[in-house]
Amino acid sequence: MYRTHNNGELRIKNIDQKVKLCGWIQKSRDLGGMTFIDLRDRYGITQLAFNEELNKSLSEKARNLNREWVVEIEGIVRERSNKNHKINTGEIEIEAEKLTILNKSKTPPFTIEDETDGGEELRMKYRFLDLRRRPLQKNLALRSEMSIEIRNFFHQNSFLEIETPYLIKSTPEGARDFVVPSRMNKQQFYALPQSPQTFKQLLMVSGYDRYFQIVKCFRDEDLRSDRQPEFTQIDCEMAFVNQQEVLETFEGLIKFLFKKILNIEFQDPFPIISYDEAIEKYGSDKPDIRFEMELTYLDDLAKGKGFKVFDESESVVAINVPGCAEYSRKKLDELSDWVKRPQIGAKGLVYLKYNLDQTFKSSVDKFYDSSSLIKWVNKCNSKPGDLILILSGKKSSVQTQLNELRLLMGSRLGLRDSKIFKPIWVVDFPLLEKDETTNSFHAMHHPFTSPKKSDLEMLETNPEKVRANAYDLAINGVEVGGGSIRIHDRNIQEKMFEILGFSKKEAEAQFGFLMSAFEYGAPPHGGIAFGFDRLCALFGGKDNIRDFIAFPKNNSGRDTMIDAPSHLDKQQTEELGIELPKLKD
Amino acid sequence: MYRTHNNGELRIKNIDQKVKLCGWIQKSRDLGGMTFIDLRDRYGITQLAFNEELNKSLSEKARNLNREWVVEIEGIVRERSNKNHKINTGEIEIEAEKLTILNKSKTPPFTIEDETDGGEELRMKYRFLDLRRRPLQKNLALRSEMSIEIRNFFHQNSFLEIETPYLIKSTPEGARDFVVPSRMNKQQFYALPQSPQTFKQLLMVSGYDRYFQIVKCFRDEDLRSDRQPEFTQIDCEMAFVNQQEVLETFEGLIKFLFKKILNIEFQDPFPIISYDEAIEKYGSDKPDIRFEMELTYLDDLAKGKGFKVFDESESVVAINVPGCAEYSRKKLDELSDWVKRPQIGAKGLVYLKYNLDQTFKSSVDKFYDSSSLIKWVNKCNSKPGDLILILSGKKSSVQTQLNELRLLMGSRLGLRDSKIFKPIWVVDFPLLEKDETTNSFHAMHHPFTSPKKSDLEMLETNPEKVRANAYDLAINGVEVGGGSIRIHDRNIQEKMFEILGFSKKEAEAQFGFLMSAFEYGAPPHGGIAFGFDRLCALFGGKDNIRDFIAFPKNNSGRDTMIDAPSHLDKQQTEELGIELPKLKD
Repeated sequence: MYRTHNNGELRIKNIDQKVKLCGWIQKSRDLGGMTFIDLRDRYGITQLAFNEELNKSLSEKARNLNREWVVEIEGIVRERSNKNHKINTGEIEIEAEKLTILNKSKTPPFTIEDETDGGEELRMKYRFLDLRRRPLQKNLALRSEMSIEIRNFFHQNSFLEIETPYLIKSTPEGARDFVVPSRMNKQQFYALPQSPQTFKQLLMVSGYDRYFQIVKCFRDEDLRSDRQPEFTQIDCEMAFVNQQEVLETFEGLIKFLFKKILNIEFQDPFPIISYDEAIEKYGSDKPDIRFEMELTYLDDLAKGKGFKVFDESESVVAINVPGCAEYSRKKLDELSDWVKRPQIGAKGLVYLKYNLDQTFKSSVDKFYDSSSLIKWVNKCNSKPGDLILILSGKKSSVQTQLNELRLLMGSRLGLRDSKIFKPIWVVDFPLLEKDETTNSFHAMHHPFTSPKKSDLEMLETNPEKVRANAYDLAINGVEVGGGSIRIHDRNIQEKMFEILGFSKKEAEAQFGFLMSAFEYGAPPHGGIAFGFDRLCALFGGKDNIRDFIAFPKNNSGRDTMIDAPSHLDKQQTEELGIELPKLKD
Repeated sequence: MYRTHNNGELRIKNIDQKVKLCGWIQKSRDLGGMTFIDLRDRYGITQLAFNEELNKSLSEKARNLNREWVVEIEGIVRERSNKNHKINTGEIEIEAEKLTILNKSKTPPFTIEDETDGGEELRMKYRFLDLRRRPLQKNLALRSEMSIEIRNFFHQNSFLEIETPYLIKSTPEGARDFVVPSRMNKQQFYALPQSPQTFKQLLMVSGYDRYFQIVKCFRDEDLRSDRQPEFTQIDCEMAFVNQQEVLETFEGLIKFLFKKILNIEFQDPFPIISYDEAIEKYGSDKPDIRFEMELTYLDDLAKGKGFKVFDESESVVAINVPGCAEYSRKKLDELSDWVKRPQIGAKGLVYLKYNLDQTFKSSVDKFYDSSSLIKWVNKCNSKPGDLILILSGKKSSVQTQLNELRLLMGSRLGLRDSKIFKPIWVVDFPLLEKDETTNSFHAMHHPFTSPKKSDLEMLETNPEKVRANAYDLAINGVEVGGGSIRIHDRNIQEKMFEILGFSKKEAEAQFGFLMSAFEYGAPPHGGIAFGFDRLCALFGGKDNIRDFIAFPKNNSGRDTMIDAPSHLDKQQTEELGIELPKLKD
């Protein structure tokens, strides 16, 4: 046996016990006759004490240990004279009697500390060392804890976890599939699932009326910091339910998790907002409602006063930033530059300071007098000392830009505390989005989302106006989940594919199995999928999902530690029946 | 709301309640004025009663319902006059008041009954209908239950579930990888993991000393009935443990599952047998120990008596089949033909009947007299009435053949009850297997398995004799899990790759990351992986793992329901940077 206890376990009550511990050398201090070593494992740190007077050769051996060496130690638990109340084991130390070096370590390329000196690239290459750091260990433990609690919730609520296949059929539409050549079926390909969508719907047709799965999904697309080519979804589906029941069920899941993991209790139902209202109020379909700073439309007040920029804009929209009237010219210029960056794309920023003495200072003073501006501040509910920031232009663009500005100002004012959680359901999404360049439609969620019954008639006449039985859950401005009540009628599904530009033949070739299933007694059904990586990051109070994934890919989709993807042998590609043409530069 | 209860829920205590139910029409009986319908969902069956006198048009509507239509029903719970004690809801029925057809169904291509009339191929194509059948629903519910209990066990024992990546690096050795071309890294490929082996070892290096994962693995090879190109593993690893602790921990898991799922309690530790002894006694490294019928070696008794076949054989081996002395000539000929099939490959079968009157009858009477044969039956522990079956030839071949014959006879004699479970650990596997054709070695488990310390010296001098710290768990003749204590020393790992024929460069290119990790304080570690599909089938008392997978592939690796794998568009292959040459016939 290598150890009797872990390094986070021993307390005063263990004093005088003989114990064995294993772990990594975190650090050592040599105080003349005494050598102290911090021994680390994922459970904590225990202090080892080597007394030169008691055992000279052992002390000598201990002094020669280096950082990250792995040792096994035998000794007696003693009360410390110098207690460390910052750690659980801080009242005791081990009087070492025997020391076995289990493995040595080269000097790590960066320090294994909470705040390391290693850069991102280096840490990715030596991920196995980065993963030794306490913050990452906490993140992965949190993730494991969340996954078990999620499953407990579903188990308590009669959901079955059913595994769906990873080797499925490629479909040319939507975001991009990873494909997998088959050896047994030469020149044919499987695809890795972007989600188990059609399979979970088939399970509903099969009568498994409460399904869930924590499952990897794959998307071959350009990566951003919060995207990974493989990501984990909490995938759920129910039959014989309406939208309200779906929302209640999964609100139950989220509340359960907040209670179990963070001990946060939500008494009230999560607020529900329509997509249209969310866009109108926040310029976003995943509003961060930890703070107000809602969008205010100033068109009626600001237009027609001779300021050409406003007059020629579709929309003039403001946010009121509390207490920022004292912003300097420099700060305002910076904000102006910020909204004009191509990532935001505003043409300019108009400000209005509502000074503490109730005077005004604005960048458009010459067009508007106080009697005009007082109406602006009234409409914006501004108080003296507040700053109004205004963008104008195409309405939908201005909304999107103001959402970004609102989030920036919220962060600056400390209104986005990562320990405060404000969930909100966004409902009544549009069914379709129009691609302005091709003049074609694509599904806002996916082609299996059902249109609202009341809007069904408009499917032919006014498809853009049709709302869907679709919903998202946003928490703190992050979309953590989304779903819909599905189509379960073959005719409506066919119509949907038609609107999306599928020929009958294409629809049949790609989704014939699902439409066939709809003809054999498909129940009404709906569901949701949560982004598990993102949910973990949110619960951990962080933005970057990578820190919650043991072995993530970098922004080029590479794992630099194992060096993947990589080139294949010619023999391998031949066996697969594929050829790699010379690449053009 | 579609329903207030499911179809397995209502009891006498619910009588006179107004309820809503949903489900599928299982069958209907028309008894003149009364129409009875069995409404089905995964929870059970509830009888609906339509009384023509009470509501003529509703009865009319009910009579027109067909099998597998989906309906919503409103009505009052009534006590049945004719109780059905075979089902939980058999004391009540629903006096229907309202009937809504939620969806119609074409006539299914096979009956949705426990014993269906549909052939395998048809049921695979309409898997969504096959999955409606009760036996499959029970299997998937069992699987879901097992997965939650497995996780409970691990959670209670401080294991973390950590997800490892699916897009990893391809290695040319071992069983075959599925590969995935990368769009972002043109003409480079990921591989799908055959197991998370190297990643779980890295996690040990990172200090996550108790890891598990229920995870899909992939192997592109010819399929047998118990193999799937994608399969699910319970993957586990621990650090700072020796072999005994690993065995105890996972024996704990298996006992926990038997108790929780089947209410079977194992008081004693599972027996442990060495690989050599298992082969010697059973001719198999996954012995079915529900019955004895062990191999008996007759060389000293049977050779040198003039029977050339035995004299020229390396080994003469017998099993004693209880109570089968009365086997007819025809039956014995059939057995003889059975062992001579190419799948078994024996050259012939010698029998010896030890008749009830203690006389002998054998196929080699002319070479052996009673005084010889009495020694055979004594050595075989035969009783009067038993049948001894004997094969001869190359020892290892005879052992393998007799294993098959033993299992056949065990089945015939009803000694292999699927409700009785006999686990056994097989330990001390050889480290290496010699490929006789190429004269090269490959790893019996995998290249990361550690040799026994005591055998380390033989690694250079006598590699075939080196035993590994490797173990399998067999239950009822099925290998349900296997693992090993791993190498955690770079030098030994390098040596191992060298023996396996890797050049230094190849070893570095493929597994450099792991060997590098071993230089930064790798702890001693070991683990195991269980085949989850097989474990589910075993617990379900079945042989075929396909019935425990929601959407399995057929023997050609195809999903005939979704028609995968399939051909890609030319545009897709171009984007991937690959070409498909014309196939040669």
